Amino acid sequence: MLLDQEYMNLALTLAESAKGQTSPNPMVGAVVVKDGRIIGTGAHLKAGEAHAEVHALNMAGDEARGATIYVTLEPCSHYGRTPPCAKRIIDSGIKRVIVAVVDSNPDVGGKGIQMLQEAGIDVEVGLCEKEAIELNHAFFHFIKKRRPYVTLKTASTLDGKTATVAGESKWITGNDARADGHRLRHQHDAILVGVGTVLADNPSLTARLDRGEGRHPLRVILDSNLRTPVDALMVTDQLAETLIFTLKTAPVELEKRLTKAGITIIRLTKMNLDHVLDELGRRQVQTLLVEGGAEVHGSFVKERCVNEVVQYLAPKLLGGRTASPVVGGEGIPRIHDALNFSIHSVTQLGEDLRIISKVRGE
Amino acid sequence: MLLDQEYMNLALTLAESAKGQTSPNPMVGAVVVKDGRIIGTGAHLKAGEAHAEVHALNMAGDEARGATIYVTLEPCSHYGRTPPCAKRIIDSGIKRVIVAVVDSNPDVGGKGIQMLQEAGIDVEVGLCEKEAIELNHAFFHFIKKRRPYVTLKTASTLDGKTATVAGESKWITGNDARADGHRLRHQHDAILVGVGTVLADNPSLTARLDRGEGRHPLRVILDSNLRTPVDALMVTDQLAETLIFTLKTAPVELEKRLTKAGITIIRLTKMNLDHVLDELGRRQVQTLLVEGGAEVHGSFVKERCVNEVVQYLAPKLLGGRTASPVVGGEGIPRIHDALNFSIHSVTQLGEDLRIISKVRGE
Amino acid sequence: MLLDQEYMNLALTLAESAKGQTSPNPMVGAVVVKDGRIIGTGAHLKAGEAHAEVHALNMAGDEARGATIYVTLEPCSHYGRTPPCAKRIIDSGIKRVIVAVVDSNPDVGGKGIQMLQEAGIDVEVGLCEKEAIELNHAFFHFIKKRRPYVTLKTASTLDGKTATVAGESKWITGNDARADGHRLRHQHDAILVGVGTVLADNPSLTARLDRGEGRHPLRVILDSNLRTPVDALMVTDQLAETLIFTLKTAPVELEKRLTKAGITIIRLTKMNLDHVLDELGRRQVQTLLVEGGAEVHGSFVKERCVNEVVQYLAPKLLGGRTASPVVGGEGIPRIHDALNFSIHSVTQLGEDLRIISKVRGE
Amino acid sequence: MLLDQEYMNLALTLAESAKGQTSPNPMVGAVVVKDGRIIGTGAHLKAGEAHAEVHALNMAGDEARGATIYVTLEPCSHYGRTPPCAKRIIDSGIKRVIVAVVDSNPDVGGKGIQMLQEAGIDVEVGLCEKEAIELNHAFFHFIKKRRPYVTLKTASTLDGKTATVAGESKWITGNDARADGHRLRHQHDAILVGVGTVLADNPSLTARLDRGEGRHPLRVILDSNLRTPVDALMVTDQLAETLIFTLKTAPVELEKRLTKAGITIIRLTKMNLDHVLDELGRRQVQTLLVEGGAEVHGSFVKERCVNEVVQYLAPKLLGGRTASPVVGGEGIPRIHDALNFSIHSVTQLGEDLRIISKVRGE
Ligand SMILES: [Zn+2]
Ligand SMILES: [Zn+2]
Ligand SMILES: [Zn+2]
Ligand SMILES: [Zn+2]
Repeated sequence: MLLDQEYMNLALTLAESAKGQTSPNPMVGAVVVKDGRIIGTGAHLKAGEAHAEVHALNMAGDEARGATIYVTLEPCSHYGRTPPCAKRIIDSGIKRVIVAVVDSNPDVGGKGIQMLQEAGIDVEVGLCEKEAIELNHAFFHFIKKRRPYVTLKTASTLDGKTATVAGESKWITGNDARADGHRLRHQHDAILVGVGTVLADNPSLTARLDRGEGRHPLRVILDSNLRTPVDALMVTDQLAETLIFTLKTAPVELEKRLTKAGITIIRLTKMNLDHVLDELGRRQVQTLLVEGGAEVHGSFVKERCVNEVVQYLAPKLLGGRTASPVVGGEGIPRIHDALNFSIHSVTQLGEDLRIISKVRGE
Repeated sequence: MLLDQEYMNLALTLAESAKGQTSPNPMVGAVVVKDGRIIGTGAHLKAGEAHAEVHALNMAGDEARGATIYVTLEPCSHYGRTPPCAKRIIDSGIKRVIVAVVDSNPDVGGKGIQMLQEAGIDVEVGLCEKEAIELNHAFFHFIKKRRPYVTLKTASTLDGKTATVAGESKWITGNDARADGHRLRHQHDAILVGVGTVLADNPSLTARLDRGEGRHPLRVILDSNLRTPVDALMVTDQLAETLIFTLKTAPVELEKRLTKAGITIIRLTKMNLDHVLDELGRRQVQTLLVEGGAEVHGSFVKERCVNEVVQYLAPKLLGGRTASPVVGGEGIPRIHDALNFSIHSVTQLGEDLRIISKVRGE
Repeated sequence: MLLDQEYMNLALTLAESAKGQTSPNPMVGAVVVKDGRIIGTGAHLKAGEAHAEVHALNMAGDEARGATIYVTLEPCSHYGRTPPCAKRIIDSGIKRVIVAVVDSNPDVGGKGIQMLQEAGIDVEVGLCEKEAIELNHAFFHFIKKRRPYVTLKTASTLDGKTATVAGESKWITGNDARADGHRLRHQHDAILVGVGTVLADNPSLTARLDRGEGRHPLRVILDSNLRTPVDALMVTDQLAETLIFTLKTAPVELEKRLTKAGITIIRLTKMNLDHVLDELGRRQVQTLLVEGGAEVHGSFVKERCVNEVVQYLAPKLLGGRTASPVVGGEGIPRIHDALNFSIHSVTQLGEDLRIISKVRGE
Repeated sequence: MLLDQEYMNLALTLAESAKGQTSPNPMVGAVVVKDGRIIGTGAHLKAGEAHAEVHALNMAGDEARGATIYVTLEPCSHYGRTPPCAKRIIDSGIKRVIVAVVDSNPDVGGKGIQMLQEAGIDVEVGLCEKEAIELNHAFFHFIKKRRPYVTLKTASTLDGKTATVAGESKWITGNDARADGHRLRHQHDAILVGVGTVLADNPSLTARLDRGEGRHPLRVILDSNLRTPVDALMVTDQLAETLIFTLKTAPVELEKRLTKAGITIIRLTKMNLDHVLDELGRRQVQTLLVEGGAEVHGSFVKERCVNEVVQYLAPKLLGGRTASPVVGGEGIPRIHDALNFSIHSVTQLGEDLRIISKVRGE
């Protein structure tokens, strides 16, 4: 099984290389092999464009006849924007399909494999399954819950301050951590902040990578009273869509001005995160990055809507009882009720640490 | 040089095994070798008792004649509570001495080596020097500054909370982290808290190891107005000495009651940490562990009196804008002026992380 | 530079995935990136087929305009079986090219870069250069010497026996090591054995991978007197081309029978490895795997024609002064004149070890 | 259990530091701890001298009362050259004993623990048991089999040559490997060679460490016809005892000359290794290093008397069908009957590799 595993690892590497650019589709990679020779490789690169199998089979051309294809997710079986990959595989003359993991979508899961088997193709499932699930864990979360996978991002000193007592926050962390933060944005469908952050920092929330611009995620503002200024960057810069959740009670004239500027306003009876996440799920937001401020983080913690925490920790001490903490809000009064995570990884980025924690029991 | 290094590594291991029990002396280890055979090993185990060289030479007995001794610190040359080790080495007939690092005390540094060389002994210096300096870094700090090496200990959630909004703090971290915290106490000469911590938690600040009691460090309370109750555990338990720093203005009758209970009171014109640390230095406190609360930590940060931070981080989120942070106080207003550290190590302890950071530029 | 390096690493991974299938071309990988999004990936998969850049740009399509391409080797500039990649890159509207290493071929090296720069494209050279050179070290050796890079393969017990005193050799090593040996064949252009091995084992020298057949390298036999039987597998199986080096003095009638069976015969005045390697170089054999027997290995050692040794070592002892050693021949009489190697890697394969050593001073 | 394990690890380190100097006794280390403070450490350094427990308790002095002792082997219970350690522990007032492994000697195993328990001491067994067994694996082998644990030492090129075709063998391996070979001698009770090696190299077989001399093991020569010259170094140098195994048929006058020179001669009816090893076992040789030549190694392999192989492999090729192999003799004719080992460790020593393999199924 040595070689099989290596081919699947290559397919997983290809899939992961497209992280942040396939939504609402999952990341998928494929490798076509014949007589111990790779004759095609591919990844799904963008929703609406070719699936991984198609790229790999295109590259293989006629040689695909009699070959084996390694694919990180069950080939699709439905006629959508593209014809089903299962059919494309059958037509190409492939005689063996190795699948890492079955499609978790209950409507289609297993049908691709069935279609292949009915065509007399030898199908094996489960090679590198764990890695394939981990790769698309946010996608699988979305399929199951119909709500985005929520990641809280924080950048603080060792003592948990996101700014000094004087409000200075540029920059707590170093270049490497900040660049990593931009990649994080690039990998998410949407970024959410509170109106307080808009008023204080007037951020554009775009993904600035080291070369050119990244993909700009949807921007989401929680703003009960529509205090977002019409000249805020997120309203005027046209770089990405902006969505504001507000209350039924917010002044209509303010809504009009923002709507006119191209902003989508959604009114809720109560600023309840369940409603916010349901609505984002309906809009196919699979991954949501919550970037503060402290009060917004506080709501996500209080309402237990956090799947993952990405924490940039600068080895500095600032002190100050009034300096802004990473999470504010009302707080959870009993330790017994705290949100519990597992440390997933600790990485040094320049002088700083990045600590990724994932919620337990999911 | 292969074997030389292995013998010195054994001497360093022996030295370090006595961590927390040699103060105010440094940790020292020694190994005596003859014809490729170890004939004696020793460590300095307690101030006032035999030095490492003496233990090792005792074990070697008459065989020491013609042997080599590996010692992690320059042998002493002064007649103190014990006769100088340099003389003991000469008398034993040792013909070669390998020293990891010269004594940094300006009054005696180099004199031990000189005494050995004048007796015709071959002396080599510098093997594993870096490790030997790192081993006793707090000791060397003290020798240079005549003030304790200060370690800030914190235990918090991922979001930097040491308690819930309701004040609940038992237990933020798990068993392993808490046990490690007790070892930390065991390894320090003194532990310092603010009177707020005394009033809130009434701690005994002793080192409870998994078997029996550890060494109990000196307990130090910062208490401007002598609010420490006479029935506080630290006043009554007799487990270790307790020292209170207070202001000149604190009521005399309160001082009397505490003094009568065996507590030492030191009055300062101003609650200035320079004075506190100078006084502790005079009392031969080489290592000080600061255990909070947040306001005390805030003072140490503000007055820039922190050498190291040992941080226990529980993968939990509690939130709460009024929950206690790890460092309070007035805070440093400019990021440019923040205390800067380097991450020294990150260790998983049960579910928690321990992050050790050391101040830069020392 | 973080992301740049990651994209180049992906290009290197893609290149290496085609190891053993690109000869006489080098392995090359390419990745096209726009706005932080991968829009094309490719590897050169087979000589005569599309270059890596072409696969990657095909996948990118019109989106390539304004994008960056990462390529592990300087794009070609000559009109050969395919139009030059440099032109294809220019035509596609790419605005930035990152090259790992310049083409070492003196006739064309640097011309691709020049062509790109003259078209106003921003070109950077040297990212991951060391890895890119290591990847194609055999190719670069061939370009420089016009002779194959020679790897000696041995499989023996701990005591260096390739067979028992009774001649039994099946199997010294375990399944994993033997499977790895087949991959090694798959990755070489030619495999060489002596006629003694043909007579003793009648091997087919094909690459049997765990699924189907691998690429079958050219088979080369050193056979001074044309003793290779016409019914030997390598003569009859038609699975790959077979080449026999023999002496001018070998009987003509034997040559005729072999030639008739489709075997190519090359007559040398002397069985001199310099001539053998020069001839194989002329036939574009870039990588040669020497698989014994002991006398053939002995000639390669004596004539100092070994670049690398891949040694499978089974943790067994067989003993026997007459058991076959891994290298025979006349031997080098002075230790001072031994062929010197550096250990490159040691890997556990099942119960066995694989030790790869590379000749020094190349 | 964290601290317990650390104390036992220190005891194991102390024990191992005396490797090669305790025979026929096992290596043993001990650490005495009270209130989380180490108050004594010791190792058994030489047969006939103090046991580890005695050194550690001496260092602890009166403080031992109420303390815990960690010891890597069950304390002895018999009155031998020293009084039993179990009694010494009881007398010292120790209240808790942590033992890594029970004494495997069937006559005394368990009696030490019983003696301690009957005195009301709390005894725990099994902490770091695996490491404690591994530490003394040769000792335990001897206790069980009453024969030495046999290690074959080889030093060869990659192609298994111990000399060139011209007989040159100085030096195949580099300085680091050769120094390690001397340590290996230092760690063994006896070294065995064939008379051929004596005639060819006239070795002294002493352990030359980088400083001064190591312990010189007993020298054993297999010499069927008493060809060992009376002026051989091993006969004349007086550095260590020398023992010759010969046949009943060897000339009596040769025996007389050697006996007169202080050599012990043992006559066997047949040069059978079972007899040799039994005799060495009777002489308390627990560890035997077999240093060749090839024919002697061949006998040990053929008679299946090898427990471990320590192989120094120089990354050189020498070739030569007549060059000396590492193992000669008659050899094992069937692969199925080969001696099977497991790779225990691979270590780089300078340019060379050291591969340690241990026989399977022991
Ligand atoms: Zn599809
Ligand atoms: Zn001293
Ligand atoms: Zn090209
Ligand atoms: Zn004993």
